Amino acid sequence: MKKIRDLVVDDTFEMFVLIKQADVRLAKNGKKFIAFTFQDGSGNIDGKFWGATEDEIERYKAGKVVFLNGKREVYQNTPQVKIIKLRLATEEEPYQAELYMEKSPVQKEDLAEEINQTIFEITNATWNRIVRHLLVEHQTAFYEYPAAKNFHHAFVGGLAVHTVSMLRIAKSLCKEYPALNASLLYSGVLLHDLGKVIELSGPIGTEYTLAGNLLGHIVIVDEEISKACVALKIDEQSEDVIVLKHMILAHHGQLDYGSPVRPRIMEAEVLHQIDNIDASMQMMMGALEQVEPGQYTNALFGMDGRRFYRPNSK
Amino acid sequence: MKKIRDLVVDDTFEMFVLIKQADVRLAKNGKKFIAFTFQDGSGNIDGKFWGATEDEIERYKAGKVVFLNGKREVYQNTPQVKIIKLRLATEEEPYQAELYMEKSPVQKEDLAEEINQTIFEITNATWNRIVRHLLVEHQTAFYEYPAAKNFHHAFVGGLAVHTVSMLRIAKSLCKEYPALNASLLYSGVLLHDLGKVIELSGPIGTEYTLAGNLLGHIVIVDEEISKACVALKIDEQSEDVIVLKHMILAHHGQLDYGSPVRPRIMEAEVLHQIDNIDASMQMMMGALEQVEPGQYTNALFGMDGRRFYRPNSK
Amino acid sequence: MKKIRDLVVDDTFEMFVLIKQADVRLAKNGKKFIAFTFQDGSGNIDGKFWGATEDEIERYKAGKVVFLNGKREVYQNTPQVKIIKLRLATEEEPYQAELYMEKSPVQKEDLAEEINQTIFEITNATWNRIVRHLLVEHQTAFYEYPAAKNFHHAFVGGLAVHTVSMLRIAKSLCKEYPALNASLLYSGVLLHDLGKVIELSGPIGTEYTLAGNLLGHIVIVDEEISKACVALKIDEQSEDVIVLKHMILAHHGQLDYGSPVRPRIMEAEVLHQIDNIDASMQMMMGALEQVEPGQYTNALFGMDGRRFYRPNSK
Amino acid sequence: MKKIRDLVVDDTFEMFVLIKQADVRLAKNGKKFIAFTFQDGSGNIDGKFWGATEDEIERYKAGKVVFLNGKREVYQNTPQVKIIKLRLATEEEPYQAELYMEKSPVQKEDLAEEINQTIFEITNATWNRIVRHLLVEHQTAFYEYPAAKNFHHAFVGGLAVHTVSMLRIAKSLCKEYPALNASLLYSGVLLHDLGKVIELSGPIGTEYTLAGNLLGHIVIVDEEISKACVALKIDEQSEDVIVLKHMILAHHGQLDYGSPVRPRIMEAEVLHQIDNIDASMQMMMGALEQVEPGQYTNALFGMDGRRFYRPNSK
Amino acid sequence: MKKIRDLVVDDTFEMFVLIKQADVRLAKNGKKFIAFTFQDGSGNIDGKFWGATEDEIERYKAGKVVFLNGKREVYQNTPQVKIIKLRLATEEEPYQAELYMEKSPVQKEDLAEEINQTIFEITNATWNRIVRHLLVEHQTAFYEYPAAKNFHHAFVGGLAVHTVSMLRIAKSLCKEYPALNASLLYSGVLLHDLGKVIELSGPIGTEYTLAGNLLGHIVIVDEEISKACVALKIDEQSEDVIVLKHMILAHHGQLDYGSPVRPRIMEAEVLHQIDNIDASMQMMMGALEQVEPGQYTNALFGMDGRRFYRPNSK
Amino acid sequence: MKKIRDLVVDDTFEMFVLIKQADVRLAKNGKKFIAFTFQDGSGNIDGKFWGATEDEIERYKAGKVVFLNGKREVYQNTPQVKIIKLRLATEEEPYQAELYMEKSPVQKEDLAEEINQTIFEITNATWNRIVRHLLVEHQTAFYEYPAAKNFHHAFVGGLAVHTVSMLRIAKSLCKEYPALNASLLYSGVLLHDLGKVIELSGPIGTEYTLAGNLLGHIVIVDEEISKACVALKIDEQSEDVIVLKHMILAHHGQLDYGSPVRPRIMEAEVLHQIDNIDASMQMMMGALEQVEPGQYTNALFGMDGRRFYRPNSK
Repeated sequence: MKKIRDLVVDDTFEMFVLIKQADVRLAKNGKKFIAFTFQDGSGNIDGKFWGATEDEIERYKAGKVVFLNGKREVYQNTPQVKIIKLRLATEEEPYQAELYMEKSPVQKEDLAEEINQTIFEITNATWNRIVRHLLVEHQTAFYEYPAAKNFHHAFVGGLAVHTVSMLRIAKSLCKEYPALNASLLYSGVLLHDLGKVIELSGPIGTEYTLAGNLLGHIVIVDEEISKACVALKIDEQSEDVIVLKHMILAHHGQLDYGSPVRPRIMEAEVLHQIDNIDASMQMMMGALEQVEPGQYTNALFGMDGRRFYRPNSK
Repeated sequence: MKKIRDLVVDDTFEMFVLIKQADVRLAKNGKKFIAFTFQDGSGNIDGKFWGATEDEIERYKAGKVVFLNGKREVYQNTPQVKIIKLRLATEEEPYQAELYMEKSPVQKEDLAEEINQTIFEITNATWNRIVRHLLVEHQTAFYEYPAAKNFHHAFVGGLAVHTVSMLRIAKSLCKEYPALNASLLYSGVLLHDLGKVIELSGPIGTEYTLAGNLLGHIVIVDEEISKACVALKIDEQSEDVIVLKHMILAHHGQLDYGSPVRPRIMEAEVLHQIDNIDASMQMMMGALEQVEPGQYTNALFGMDGRRFYRPNSK
Repeated sequence: MKKIRDLVVDDTFEMFVLIKQADVRLAKNGKKFIAFTFQDGSGNIDGKFWGATEDEIERYKAGKVVFLNGKREVYQNTPQVKIIKLRLATEEEPYQAELYMEKSPVQKEDLAEEINQTIFEITNATWNRIVRHLLVEHQTAFYEYPAAKNFHHAFVGGLAVHTVSMLRIAKSLCKEYPALNASLLYSGVLLHDLGKVIELSGPIGTEYTLAGNLLGHIVIVDEEISKACVALKIDEQSEDVIVLKHMILAHHGQLDYGSPVRPRIMEAEVLHQIDNIDASMQMMMGALEQVEPGQYTNALFGMDGRRFYRPNSK
Repeated sequence: MKKIRDLVVDDTFEMFVLIKQADVRLAKNGKKFIAFTFQDGSGNIDGKFWGATEDEIERYKAGKVVFLNGKREVYQNTPQVKIIKLRLATEEEPYQAELYMEKSPVQKEDLAEEINQTIFEITNATWNRIVRHLLVEHQTAFYEYPAAKNFHHAFVGGLAVHTVSMLRIAKSLCKEYPALNASLLYSGVLLHDLGKVIELSGPIGTEYTLAGNLLGHIVIVDEEISKACVALKIDEQSEDVIVLKHMILAHHGQLDYGSPVRPRIMEAEVLHQIDNIDASMQMMMGALEQVEPGQYTNALFGMDGRRFYRPNSK
Repeated sequence: MKKIRDLVVDDTFEMFVLIKQADVRLAKNGKKFIAFTFQDGSGNIDGKFWGATEDEIERYKAGKVVFLNGKREVYQNTPQVKIIKLRLATEEEPYQAELYMEKSPVQKEDLAEEINQTIFEITNATWNRIVRHLLVEHQTAFYEYPAAKNFHHAFVGGLAVHTVSMLRIAKSLCKEYPALNASLLYSGVLLHDLGKVIELSGPIGTEYTLAGNLLGHIVIVDEEISKACVALKIDEQSEDVIVLKHMILAHHGQLDYGSPVRPRIMEAEVLHQIDNIDASMQMMMGALEQVEPGQYTNALFGMDGRRFYRPNSK
Repeated sequence: MKKIRDLVVDDTFEMFVLIKQADVRLAKNGKKFIAFTFQDGSGNIDGKFWGATEDEIERYKAGKVVFLNGKREVYQNTPQVKIIKLRLATEEEPYQAELYMEKSPVQKEDLAEEINQTIFEITNATWNRIVRHLLVEHQTAFYEYPAAKNFHHAFVGGLAVHTVSMLRIAKSLCKEYPALNASLLYSGVLLHDLGKVIELSGPIGTEYTLAGNLLGHIVIVDEEISKACVALKIDEQSEDVIVLKHMILAHHGQLDYGSPVRPRIMEAEVLHQIDNIDASMQMMMGALEQVEPGQYTNALFGMDGRRFYRPNSK
């Protein structure tokens, strides 16, 4: 059976796919339609389902596997599918979402071990206890969530992969600059994006939650630390806690990017820079893989729309 | 005895004054000095105390009343005092800080009554309980703190005065636009700047605290709401709570002004606009009072450096 | 007979509609086409008329009622109509433009009374005479024009409705801040958008006029005041006149938004803020009405592209 | 007798000087002081007059010649004078302001002839009549005013000199690009800065007037054209008039620089560029004259703070 | 036979056209397609060639003449051609690219004479030798290349036409401002865009080269001067050379527009302004020619998206 | 004998110091003065030398050691010295500049070894030859120059220290992201700031050269590579060369920071990020060293004016 990435314009096809996104929108005529993104292991494709009934909206949610009969078209330079027929996969068919999702390049166990190892290196008791408390509390989600809805590390387990990459860079910087407080920097790395487990709806059919849209993952971690202090009876006005929260709040680096304060301790500035490096490396590597030497990538939204060149030079 | 505002260039004088600010700085020669702001009922004046010992730094803190022997000079267009001699006021002398501070134009009791009245109009139980809980918890500070270190409402009780002015505007807008959710808007007004009681050090010798500098008052209120939910057993993931928090987080209107999210519910946008109006009215009125009709004020920092004209026209 | 908002994709239909806009453009092949917006009470829809002759361009102007035979399609996520046949409505048919336009929510008489009442409260003779003179001169248009081509108050009578809403807010602010000069603020509110009656072509088929595009409504009112001074023999160099003109010129608040000067008197700053509130309230209320609780609006162009959330919370 | 530019630090001196500016300010101690700029043919120097009485403020206005006994000091890298004694020059002494002012490099008669010649080349009757009308009305001021308070062409007659330089560039551009409408471009050049005769107080002791501060010279010319139309019975809604006004309104090129509309006809864009060239040439030439080859000028405020290099190369 | 500009929507046609651009892109299905721009004397039209083989990619390169059988459609408001059949023109057919290209309005010989004449006026030996050396080296390309891929002077020979227009303006400015160093200014004009002969691929099927994308034409000229110094044994650290290079490097005026330094000598600032004038004149004239008096042009990308009005006034 | 950092306000002193900077400026009275920065091992101090003769200007150049008799004062919050007497140190006295300069924390030999080691790892022959050629050519200067006039690594040998720190980070990133081309990244690191040896005047009395001001170090390296290609007979249009130049040209990351192109290959983006990290680490560490735990640094110009907090937390 063909995969999404094999489809050519004007192909008519039938295949099982996962509903990755299912946005219900109101057309200007007052009727609802569903803007689908379908996914299999090989790629994604969008398609609109016009005039959806309440029933259909209920049935075709993100995370469901469907049997799709469609035609491959092009709209505004982007492939899309004209939906001819659609039905849910039955239990006799390959209906499990996991079969259709992109896999993390690293094993969860390896990530967990590297993270646990690092926690031992956090010698400040306050930070150690808070980090441990929060990672335990959100353990399952932490190893399953992506690091973003789109852009970088947008796959199952992406959040943990991103965290571990950053830890490694943090460690080499601590070696090069011994003035850095390693305990603080590692704590910041481990917690900085943990709010994504509340900001996003989950690894499958990932959407922003209401809290994600109205509060954002930065503030969400901050609240989690506050509540951890209540639970662990740690004084929230202590410098240890304020400084740790600052790490999280400042990690986007600029007010314009959603940090309510700019980095004002050295480790917070460094955390921001490491986050930058890993996120942009992931975006560039992902895009360059898809082109041949001597070609340019598409414009990368997360890199200010630049198109990157893949050299032939070695 | 002369007051600060009576001093003329080259006057040598002796008077009791309150230390409003006492910033210890490191001069480039490695010695410490104290950058003082002195205050009496009539005005402020700055003065530097060179080569301060640890002992003197400990003794001359913000909030202390001192007997100052000095000479009125001018430095960079600003009056300043050359400190000749300095000592703490004794208990036989007028040593109470309150004697030297600017007074609020409104009685605390009147403010409290208006606020309590408004709380009755918050008909949503979640918001009502959270607002009540937090105002009770920070009751004393709320009626004593200024609304800012400098700029607008920078006097004892300024925070409550600012809050009540905004409530009145909120009420007239709710009348004009019935689509506004009054309960939500009032809750937002009441809590929006409450974080100042943690961001600032207090009504006397007001400084930013470490939490103020590294977290900021916006995030501080958000944390307070999270902890109130724990205490009151309110589900933090409920829409009621998320929406209330959003009011606070978005009230600076722009990411650039320190809000981690922009207003995305109507009442949050309105809260931001009301805050703007009251803060700018206070700055403009304060500056215009000091000039004659037909003159311009000084450049107002909080109003993008504009100099405002006071018309003769009536 | 179906209304525009009832049409579903692929519907073929016949109906009477008003031509709201009819932009003649040059296609790259050198032929002209008309980009129509059609309107009935229920909504708008766009459609292109390819290869229009001079005759047809002359015949199908904005403001005409036509009988339209078309097919409802979708183009770039927006409904549009493919025009099958088109002819002017005859006098035997419902051919009056008024039948197809959005109605103001308020009666013209009520608006006029409230405005006239306010003029009495302008106690400065210069301002009173100028305001009265200009409102009389543009009386008819003032009560018929919309306040904008799109965005807020874009309906017949919208300009007067917007003006009256702002007057009410102005009055409550004058009560809260007695330092405001009420005569000046009311004069500013009454005149601030009067230039729209020259900037825009009229209530039906609203377009920008040449003066609208090349001068803008702000400068147009300023000129009107100059000419009123000539007619009324008021000294244009008097402070009264300069200050009134400044109110108008500065009311967009920022140079970037088309004001040639920023507000430098207190009432001008306040006028700008009131204008902001009423315009944004109108845009938010309009958009939120069209979605259900728990949903987001479309991106609002006039609100920096934000999508607003309509809470379930009450 | 020494001139201002000959004074060395610590010189005590007596000389006749013209008061170029006399800003009365309120010191923070509530007393008034006068911030003087003194001028003779050779240069300017600032000095503060502390504790000025109403009488002295009245006596020492900009435009008066005074006998100054002072000491040359330095303040913030800028020469300044400590005022020891000050009195008005008597009629027996060289008391005429003209003796102390910078002279225009060109004769008024030559400028006038070149301008009148150009008016003949404006073949559009509407523009010709309006230009002629306004230049006659403001004739005296037009040939005496500077083109700016500081920066470029800040000398007696500077406005006319600036205008004529621009006319010459305009003529060579019309020759190179025959598509330009010369009548329109020359009309724009002749009127573009005429508002300065109302924006500024005059050639001596130049200050911004109230109209200058609150309306600005751009809008002032626009009003003058409106009134000229009334006087000349020209239809203000005709395209000729709208287009001419647009030239003036758009000539700062950007909203940010105070134009309420951006250039949208070709001649308006060109007018803006010519204005730019002549203003920046004047600033650069003025600054480069004061340094030797191989040196840099001071930072030029009107050129974004750049310091320009004067090459040795020829 | 019809020309491109005569085609009407839905026309099916056959004609010879030149391939102006042929971008090979990877569709999301992994197949390649060619995004063509076809050109004849009368205009351009785009068309996509789906599922192109390596063979076809090799065959249909920019610069080739093809026989095209297609259908004229519209996509996103832009005419485009649906490609029905395509083959290379044979040598029996009109297969020469030159037949299908826009012509320069000026003769190459006239341009060359004017340029050579100007070189005589460069009296500084260093600049004269460098200019002469580089113009000789790139002689052929200099008179054939366009000045830009799109926007202004985008025709064969456009680079030389642009250079000569600028020379003329430079000459009239040198007459008006004798303080300008004419040798330096002319040298700057002659070399400023010479890097385009390396930045762009050529007059036919113009594309950015790799050097164009990764280095840019500004830096390329700078390198050329460095190498000319080596060849001519001119000391690269001499002021003459540094100043000449600065002219080139600074000619975009702003860092934001790709100049690595801002103009810091007077002639560099003027060079930037002249470049601006000629480029914008060319864009405005080109667009205004295509509309009737009383109409607006399309939004001009190179002029910040402004639509220009063509007046009826004369 | 006292050192600069021991001086207290009002101290009168005599000591040997090195002239670090000696800017000759024109005072407004037409006389020249020298703005000195003096330096000894312990710190810097500024002082002005009024009314300098040509002779004195010639004698007291940056790099000379002088015997200074002065008084320690304060001006605008900055220590400065009032110069009482000044003479050159004689050869009997400690007159060698090296005695008064800040030392690099690392040995030149260690740096050289690490760099030479790295060159072996550049396996691409073109890059290897160019890097080797240029490092040999500028060998002496490379190990002596600072990396900047002020800000980061502003000490003898700072350029090499900065380069080596960056190399180490580059290596750990290559390990973490094997997709990076290590040869290219190391080549970029080694050459990126080499232009400083021409941009700056030298390790003593560091000033910007004319080439530094008018061309900038980024373009200077680019030229050096061009000339190296000539010398080594490497084809300058080869991708290897273009890509290497791009690394240098893009390394400031943004046009606004002086890069004529933005990074468009992955290694160029990474080079920019590494440069950022090392420069900001150096600035933050330098400033934090000077304050106690619990204090804030001064505003750091190179870090957008932020004041950094040094935590007590460990």
